[in-house]
Amino acid sequence: MHCDLLITNGLLKTPGHPGPDCGQPGFVAVRDGIISTMGSIAELPGGVEAARIIDARGSLVLPGLINCHNHAAMTLFRGLADDLPLMVWLQDHIFRAEARFVSSEMVYWCSKLAAAEMILSGTTTVADGYFFEDDCVRSFKEAGLRAVAAQGIIDFPAPGVPDPADNIDTGARFLQKWRGDELITPAIFCHSPYTCSAETIVRAKDLARQADCRFFIHLAETANEVVESRKLHNLSPAAYLKRLGVLDQATVLVHCVWLDDDDLRIIKEAGAGVVSCPQSNMKLGAGAAPVDKFDEFGIPAGLGTDSCASNNNLDMFREISVAAKLAKVNRLDPTLLPAGRVMEMATSGGAGVLGLSDRIGELTVGRAADIIIVDLRKPHLTPMYSVDSLLVYAASGSDVSTSIINGRLVMDNRELLSIDLPEVIGKVNEMARRLKAET
Amino acid sequence: MHCDLLITNGLLKTPGHPGPDCGQPGFVAVRDGIISTMGSIAELPGGVEAARIIDARGSLVLPGLINCHNHAAMTLFRGLADDLPLMVWLQDHIFRAEARFVSSEMVYWCSKLAAAEMILSGTTTVADGYFFEDDCVRSFKEAGLRAVAAQGIIDFPAPGVPDPADNIDTGARFLQKWRGDELITPAIFCHSPYTCSAETIVRAKDLARQADCRFFIHLAETANEVVESRKLHNLSPAAYLKRLGVLDQATVLVHCVWLDDDDLRIIKEAGAGVVSCPQSNMKLGAGAAPVDKFDEFGIPAGLGTDSCASNNNLDMFREISVAAKLAKVNRLDPTLLPAGRVMEMATSGGAGVLGLSDRIGELTVGRAADIIIVDLRKPHLTPMYSVDSLLVYAASGSDVSTSIINGRLVMDNRELLSIDLPEVIGKVNEMARRLKAET
Repeated sequence: MHCDLLITNGLLKTPGHPGPDCGQPGFVAVRDGIISTMGSIAELPGGVEAARIIDARGSLVLPGLINCHNHAAMTLFRGLADDLPLMVWLQDHIFRAEARFVSSEMVYWCSKLAAAEMILSGTTTVADGYFFEDDCVRSFKEAGLRAVAAQGIIDFPAPGVPDPADNIDTGARFLQKWRGDELITPAIFCHSPYTCSAETIVRAKDLARQADCRFFIHLAETANEVVESRKLHNLSPAAYLKRLGVLDQATVLVHCVWLDDDDLRIIKEAGAGVVSCPQSNMKLGAGAAPVDKFDEFGIPAGLGTDSCASNNNLDMFREISVAAKLAKVNRLDPTLLPAGRVMEMATSGGAGVLGLSDRIGELTVGRAADIIIVDLRKPHLTPMYSVDSLLVYAASGSDVSTSIINGRLVMDNRELLSIDLPEVIGKVNEMARRLKAET
Repeated sequence: MHCDLLITNGLLKTPGHPGPDCGQPGFVAVRDGIISTMGSIAELPGGVEAARIIDARGSLVLPGLINCHNHAAMTLFRGLADDLPLMVWLQDHIFRAEARFVSSEMVYWCSKLAAAEMILSGTTTVADGYFFEDDCVRSFKEAGLRAVAAQGIIDFPAPGVPDPADNIDTGARFLQKWRGDELITPAIFCHSPYTCSAETIVRAKDLARQADCRFFIHLAETANEVVESRKLHNLSPAAYLKRLGVLDQATVLVHCVWLDDDDLRIIKEAGAGVVSCPQSNMKLGAGAAPVDKFDEFGIPAGLGTDSCASNNNLDMFREISVAAKLAKVNRLDPTLLPAGRVMEMATSGGAGVLGLSDRIGELTVGRAADIIIVDLRKPHLTPMYSVDSLLVYAASGSDVSTSIINGRLVMDNRELLSIDLPEVIGKVNEMARRLKAET
C-alpha cells in the first residue's frame, strides 16, 4: 500500500465511535487528497509506504471544523469599534471604514490573515461572503483553505461594484470563474432583505439556481428587522423570502435569531439551511437564536463565527463552546444542545448546510482528507471522560497541533506551512495604521 | 539600581493608560516581589543590574488576572457529567463522585493540575473554596499561585469533615494555620443558605469576623433557590442573609444570578462584594446574572470560572469574553459591560472583592509583582486598535507567554517552571481511571 500521508497512533473521532471515548488508537491513510484507508492501529497493513508519517500519539484525530459564516477580509476591522449601539457601530464605523478601505489588495491580505487564524484554530472549511471575493479566493487557494466563497450582492454602491446595476453580472462572472475548482465552491451572498430589493433578491437567486450553487442571505438578525419587515411587507422576513420564491434546499439563512414557529415551519418545508453565529449575536446584543428549535423542526443547521468586526475571533472551538452554553441559558435548560450535537453542527451539520456532505464533515474513507489533530497532553484537557465534552467545553483552537486540508499538510506542530505569517501580519498592520491615521 | 527581574520593551497596560492604546514601550523592574520602578523605555535608568531580564518586545505587559471563584480540586470531574438536569448532575454524579473520591491526596494533585491550567492561561490569583483546603494550599504554594483559599463549611458529612459538628473548628484551624502567609490569604466558604443552617452560617461568619478574613457563600444561583428561600424563610436569599446579620464588606456572594432591585439595595448597603461566573451559569442553565445592575448599584464585582465540573475550563480570558457578551445579549444592549469594564472586573475589581486592593490588580509601583505578558504577534491579535478590546474579544489564555507571581517567574515562554506537568497529569489521569472503573 502506498499513500501520501499516514497518521498513526491517534485516537480517531469517527462516526462509528461517537460514544464516551473513541476507542483504541488508529491510523488514517491519505492518497490523492482523499481518506483512502483507516482503522485501528492493529489493522494497519504491513509494508505501508507513506511520503509523510505523522505520529499522533496522545492526540485526537478529527474532521476539520466548518465555519459556515464569515466575511474574512474584515479582520482589518477587528476591534476598530466595539460596545456601541448597533446602528452607530454599523453606519458610523464599519460602513464608513469599508467605503474607504476595502480594495482588491485589502481583501487579498486581510483574507489571508483570516485564513491563517482559521487554520491555526482548526477550521478547514469556511463559508465566506464579501466584495472583491475573487481576491479572497486567491488568498484561500494559496493558503490551502477549503471555502464556499460567495460574491456579495447589495443594492448600494459597494467595494468593487460601484454601480449596483452591475451586481448580478459581477456575481455571474464570479460563479463562472471558479466553477469546478477542487478547493473553492463558488456561491452568491445577497446581503439581506432590507438592503436588497425584491428584484435583486429574485435575480440573485435565479443566478444561483442556474449555476446550481448556494444562495446565502442574512435573515432575522435583530428584532427591529422583523418589526420593519412586518411594517413594509406585512410579513416576517422568512415569510417575505418565501413569497419571493427564493427558499429552497440550496438557500442558507444566516443568523435566524428572531424566528417564530411559523417561520420555522416555512424554512423546514422549503428545506433551507440555517447558520447560527452565537458570539456575534451576543456581542451586538442581537439576541439568542432558537437553536434548539432548529433541531426540533429538523432544520439543517451549522455554526459560524461571523466576521472579526463583530466577534472578534475566528476560533470555531470558542464558537461551539458558546453555542452550547447560550442555547442552555436561553431556555434555562442545561440539557439543550449537548456537546455531541454541537460538534455535529460544526462538522457534518455544517457540511450539509453547505451542500458538501459527500465530501467533508466526517472521518470516513472516500471523503476529502480535511483532518485536524488535537494534542490532549495539556492540563486543561485532563482528564478525558468524553471526547465531545472535552472538545466543546474545554478545548481551544490553540490545541490544534496539525491541520490537513484536501490532503495537503497546511499546519504542522503549530507551524503554518502555506502562509508567510510575518509578511501577512506586516501588510495588515500597515493598512491598520493608515486606517487609524485617517479616521 | 539593582533588581531581581526587569521586563523591557513591552507595551504596559497601566491605570494611567487606559485609552485606545497603551502608548510607548516601557519597562517594569521587580525587587523583593514588588514592582519597584516602571516607566517608558526611554526613562529606564542606565546601569540597571537585573538578575533576570525579559524582553517583552511585541507583547503587552499587564496585571495578572484574578479568578474570584473556583473549586480547584474538581479538575478531576472535568467532563465527567455534562448536559444533564441540574439536580441529576449534582446529586447523581458530582456529590456521588465527591463522596467516593475526594481525599487529601486527590485535592493536592487535582488542585495542582488546576494551578497549572490557571498559570498557563494568565491567572495569578484565585479565590478557591473546597474541602481538604490545606492540601490545596500546599499545592498552590508549591506552584507559586496567589490565592484566597477558603475552607468549605457545609451541614452534611463532607470530605475531611465526616462529622458536620466539626466544620467550624476545622475552619478555625485552617485560618490559624495560614495566617500571615505571603501568598495565601485564608478565608471561609460557607456553601450556601440551603445547605447550611442559620446557626452554621452565623457561626462561620463570626469565625471569619474574628479572623478579619473573607466570608464566601454561594447565593441566588438558580430561580428555584429563590422560590425555596421564599417558601422557607419568606425572604429572598439576600434578605435572609441580611436577617442573619452576615452581610458586610468582607462577605463575598457568589453567582447572584437571581437578584431583584431590593436584593441589590441590600447588598449595596451592606458593602458586600459579588462574583459572577457567566460560563458556569450558562452551562448549568442557571441564568444570566444582572452584571449591569451590579455596576448601576455600585456593588463591587469580580468574575470567576467556577470549577471544572461546571465550566469546564479555567481560562479567565474565555470568562471575560463571555461575560461581556452575555451581559449584552441578556438586555439586547451592545453597550453594556464594555471591554474596559470587564477587564477591570478581572483585575482591580476582583482585587477589591477579595480585599487585596492594596496588593494586586494593577501595574503600579509598590504593588506585588503579579504580571503577565501577552504575545501580540499572532494573526488573531492583529491588528490592535484597542488594548482592552483585543484582550476581551480576541485573546485567549494560550496567548500568555510569561507569568510572574509575587516576583517569581512561574511560566517562561509557555514553560511552567514551578510544576512538574507530566507528573501531575499522570497522577490525575490515574485517579480518573479509577473513578471511571468504579462508576
